[in-house]
Amino acid sequence: MAVNWTAPEAASILPVPGVRIGVTEAGVRKANRKDLTVFLLDDGAAVAGVFTQNRYCAAPVQICREHLAMGTGIRAMVINTGNANAGTGEPGLVNARATCIALAKALQIAPSQVLPFSTGVIMEPLPVDRVLAGLPAAIADAQAVHWLKAAEGIMTTDTVAKAASRQVVVGGQTVTVTGIAKGAGMIRPNMATMLGFVATDANIAPALLQSLARELADGSFNRVTVDGDTSTNDSFVLVATRQAAHAEITAWDGAEAQALKAALLDVARTLAHAIVRDGEGATKFIAVRVEGGASTEECLKVAYAVAHSPLVKTAFFASDPNLGRILAAVGYAGITDLDQGKIELHLDDVHVVTQGGRNPSYREEDGARVMKQSEITIRIGLGRGAVADTVWTCDFSHDYVTINADYRS
Amino acid sequence: MAVNWTAPEAASILPVPGVRIGVTEAGVRKANRKDLTVFLLDDGAAVAGVFTQNRYCAAPVQICREHLAMGTGIRAMVINTGNANAGTGEPGLVNARATCIALAKALQIAPSQVLPFSTGVIMEPLPVDRVLAGLPAAIADAQAVHWLKAAEGIMTTDTVAKAASRQVVVGGQTVTVTGIAKGAGMIRPNMATMLGFVATDANIAPALLQSLARELADGSFNRVTVDGDTSTNDSFVLVATRQAAHAEITAWDGAEAQALKAALLDVARTLAHAIVRDGEGATKFIAVRVEGGASTEECLKVAYAVAHSPLVKTAFFASDPNLGRILAAVGYAGITDLDQGKIELHLDDVHVVTQGGRNPSYREEDGARVMKQSEITIRIGLGRGAVADTVWTCDFSHDYVTINADYRS
Repeated sequence: MAVNWTAPEAASILPVPGVRIGVTEAGVRKANRKDLTVFLLDDGAAVAGVFTQNRYCAAPVQICREHLAMGTGIRAMVINTGNANAGTGEPGLVNARATCIALAKALQIAPSQVLPFSTGVIMEPLPVDRVLAGLPAAIADAQAVHWLKAAEGIMTTDTVAKAASRQVVVGGQTVTVTGIAKGAGMIRPNMATMLGFVATDANIAPALLQSLARELADGSFNRVTVDGDTSTNDSFVLVATRQAAHAEITAWDGAEAQALKAALLDVARTLAHAIVRDGEGATKFIAVRVEGGASTEECLKVAYAVAHSPLVKTAFFASDPNLGRILAAVGYAGITDLDQGKIELHLDDVHVVTQGGRNPSYREEDGARVMKQSEITIRIGLGRGAVADTVWTCDFSHDYVTINADYRS
Repeated sequence: MAVNWTAPEAASILPVPGVRIGVTEAGVRKANRKDLTVFLLDDGAAVAGVFTQNRYCAAPVQICREHLAMGTGIRAMVINTGNANAGTGEPGLVNARATCIALAKALQIAPSQVLPFSTGVIMEPLPVDRVLAGLPAAIADAQAVHWLKAAEGIMTTDTVAKAASRQVVVGGQTVTVTGIAKGAGMIRPNMATMLGFVATDANIAPALLQSLARELADGSFNRVTVDGDTSTNDSFVLVATRQAAHAEITAWDGAEAQALKAALLDVARTLAHAIVRDGEGATKFIAVRVEGGASTEECLKVAYAVAHSPLVKTAFFASDPNLGRILAAVGYAGITDLDQGKIELHLDDVHVVTQGGRNPSYREEDGARVMKQSEITIRIGLGRGAVADTVWTCDFSHDYVTINADYRS
């Protein structure tokens, strides 16, 4: 059960003019499971992506980077679950290319206009024949209203589909932002999460798209973690089909452009949070906010040290205000000149630590009250500067172990 | 149940001339539990320590550093369990000092000749009255043969006592090395582990002791991890009582001096490994050896990334050769110019990955065979240089969650 996240109604996930989606059951790993999804984009769409910084990046990630760099205009994306096509060496690259070639042939486009994505088990050969055999059915299924079906089609250990839509008005035109994402484990995105797709029909200048994708990822997928394991396949793709009939957006000044960007960030962040809410075994949704830092880098060091600590995460699972574990994580986060005498700690509205020691007015029952909540903010003051940042994570439960000890079986 | 580690026979843990140990039940946190231990050292002992690099270091760690720096000659150590006296601010320092003052008064030495140690829950006030009330009984209990009793006296979530002895001959004299340690969770020592004590009667020049303590820690406690959480209280202390009647050792040249150092390292490493074997919930003992690195730093980055990955650790718990998770951890370890095409992976004698991809001759049943063992070596080749290093860890089981969700109750 995801923490305060349920699958949205299909009708609430709005189509984006210029995007059609088809999903099928290709039997990549298991039968009777939606596991192959294609996105078909009208000519003229601008596409940008950010990908995992894992040096062991998967074959499809390597091909995505190559095809985006060629600049021939992306017209299709293909996503399989059940196999990550990572750690597969040269044969993995051949299989990813074969997938692009087959889809391109069916659509009468160039292979470089296709982006491939895979998610699932690492280091097993991609059953490329099954992927190729499934493509015609996926293409035949393509419809504009299939976003939620696609959100289901890319799930692996996810328990619930993740999709979100927003609309804003730009130049008198209502434009739509819709996105989907998947991921529940091996989640510590470094650039983007394991498969997030956001599209809009807004007419955004192609030159703005890459930096926008980066900015959206940094404000959403790059601020969540489940288990600290950065995937080999993390990919976040932003599509602007540019079919809305307003003047092209060439800069982010102006209220309407700002509102559009806010809607894009809202969709991306909602999806990123949904991944944490559906984190493997998660029972609590936790924001770790670090304030008073001298830099973003040190705020994130502290936030991730706390968010990754198995001791902190199991204490939250137990609703046990064993909050000294947070202090220990702050201390080993890697700020060498940290002054522990300046540390402040709040748990929601409860002031737990002041000047590095237990707040004299802190009462265990106040901590216990907050720990029972399903959503909690840990707020840490470093007393070093004016920078703040936030990372979102979940707790660490028996079910995480169960899920990951059984994942392949 | 610790992995291939049982409590040693009391008779096998040899006394060290010049060291007497007393243990009592002071009721620090719970009744009927050995929780207060004193070490009494004869005049003339040389003592060196290395301590946690956690910036949130505990009050007793701060006092230990201060007293060692004063150089007045350490004559006693006092260790309580049940409370870490960390995150306790100025009152914590006052309590640690009060403990030293009381013990010094009873022994008619100076407070600066006492080293205090605490282990247990963080951020709760030390019940110093109970510690002080227990000191007379601990002192009265002091005997040379109480090493194993002390190993029991410093246990917290440990399931089994950790002690080891070795003897070597130096200058015709048999000298003894005996050590104890504790720790099962919050174990990722950065300089030393949460409470390790090794003593010898060898006549080692005091000038050699600090660098020796560092070298021993780096070869033992600083190479193990259970959960990646560096404690606030890690302390490793090396004592040379110098009572053996051989000529003073002033350098490490010569076969006998080397044999002594090897015995010291053997004791330290045996204790460090015992901590991992008794790691919270551990069912497997795992060595992560990284070869072909360009530096020690990068070998350790990769080894710790693998050793800390919850996905790798749960796969080992399940005996599931889901070895792509190891590749993912290698990839995100932080070597930015890593060439995945040069990665090799062995699981004991099984060659799993070659040139970055699955070894064509690798068979899943071979991986499954090794995964069933209780002791496993993961060997990773980076293909970047000639440096190698090893880190020892354990798997991640349901019991880790159970233990840490229930620790304070």
